[in-house]
Amino acid sequence: MEIDLSRPILARNEGLARKNRERLAAAGVFAVDILASPGAGKTTTILATIERLRDRYRIAVIEGDIASRVDAEKVASHGIPAVQINTGGACHLEADMVGRALDALPLDGLDLVIIENVGNLVCPTEFDLGQDARVVILSVPEGHDKPLKYPAIFALADAVVLNKYDTLPVFDFDEGEFRESVARLNGAAPIFPVSATKGDGVADWVEWLAGRIEAARTTT
Amino acid sequence: MEIDLSRPILARNEGLARKNRERLAAAGVFAVDILASPGAGKTTTILATIERLRDRYRIAVIEGDIASRVDAEKVASHGIPAVQINTGGACHLEADMVGRALDALPLDGLDLVIIENVGNLVCPTEFDLGQDARVVILSVPEGHDKPLKYPAIFALADAVVLNKYDTLPVFDFDEGEFRESVARLNGAAPIFPVSATKGDGVADWVEWLAGRIEAARTTT
Repeated sequence: MEIDLSRPILARNEGLARKNRERLAAAGVFAVDILASPGAGKTTTILATIERLRDRYRIAVIEGDIASRVDAEKVASHGIPAVQINTGGACHLEADMVGRALDALPLDGLDLVIIENVGNLVCPTEFDLGQDARVVILSVPEGHDKPLKYPAIFALADAVVLNKYDTLPVFDFDEGEFRESVARLNGAAPIFPVSATKGDGVADWVEWLAGRIEAARTTT
Repeated sequence: MEIDLSRPILARNEGLARKNRERLAAAGVFAVDILASPGAGKTTTILATIERLRDRYRIAVIEGDIASRVDAEKVASHGIPAVQINTGGACHLEADMVGRALDALPLDGLDLVIIENVGNLVCPTEFDLGQDARVVILSVPEGHDKPLKYPAIFALADAVVLNKYDTLPVFDFDEGEFRESVARLNGAAPIFPVSATKGDGVADWVEWLAGRIEAARTTT
């Protein structure tokens, strides 16, 4: 006998994601979910984003990890409120976990919540968290064939950041093929080549995000 | 109401893994499961390993991916039998899938089966496939803090390959901290710095694997 429990689990998650979304909208807070492999540079990109937006918006970060508080401590050391979620083994965040993290944040005093999902190109795809936008970061060393192997996550992205772009000369990464594969899965998502450590390209990605935040404000 | 289905699923997997293990042992075949993030260099390391061992052992590869046949085609182009498993969304291989792949391989004419798991540092940890050894590949660009964030997979490794070692000058990777974190989780696993694309360090890793294959032969 096999029981498919994925439907009731996902249905419950959808309900909780809707609750998060309503709560964030009511407080006027924009939420972006950052998705990537381990080591693609999620935290570094988030820190570079914060440095460029902290004078414009009041920002907090929700850090998702299997274990450790490394990332929340990095963010907090920049004077930004950070809530660490340890999933204790689960390979993705769920709306329920994000809801509890929102409880710990002063939503009325915030404009932007950045959610760093668990490092994984597979599991997070099916779990809506109540975010306004989903951004996938792929780093050059991972290789240009990743959209072929992990299509679902590229298909749902609102934008793609191509990080560690400064290491292009070191790796056998075919940017044309990468762009074509992404375009086949997702005609709408812009691709931003970025070096989060050196700062190159960060401005373009950040302006896209700010544009999304402003657009959400005009709608509500 | 919440139902924990992980126990019966894992119990069923254990039974099927035991069957795979018995079947491999009866045929005198050693199986190694290769675990890593997307883009850490699993396929490239497997190809470099095959080049060094193909005169000594008869080798086949089982490729696990969410989607695509990219990796199986790469391996087959080197004249090595390759079976592609597409998990269709699942973030890890299971013993059942590997059992069906073994059906498709001429086990009596093989000495070594290399299993390339789905790119993921989380999900594969709980699923025994019936392998004789598990090897985790981390690549330098992913960062030295990964054992802190994904401890379970480093704890179960029989060996760790530190790939893209030639890019150490390009990244902020603290090898001492990495080695300490691994040692804290796993005192037994050797760490092999390797550049799978350039060939540096491949010999040491391959000799370790050959030693394990020979040891298994003496035991049985």
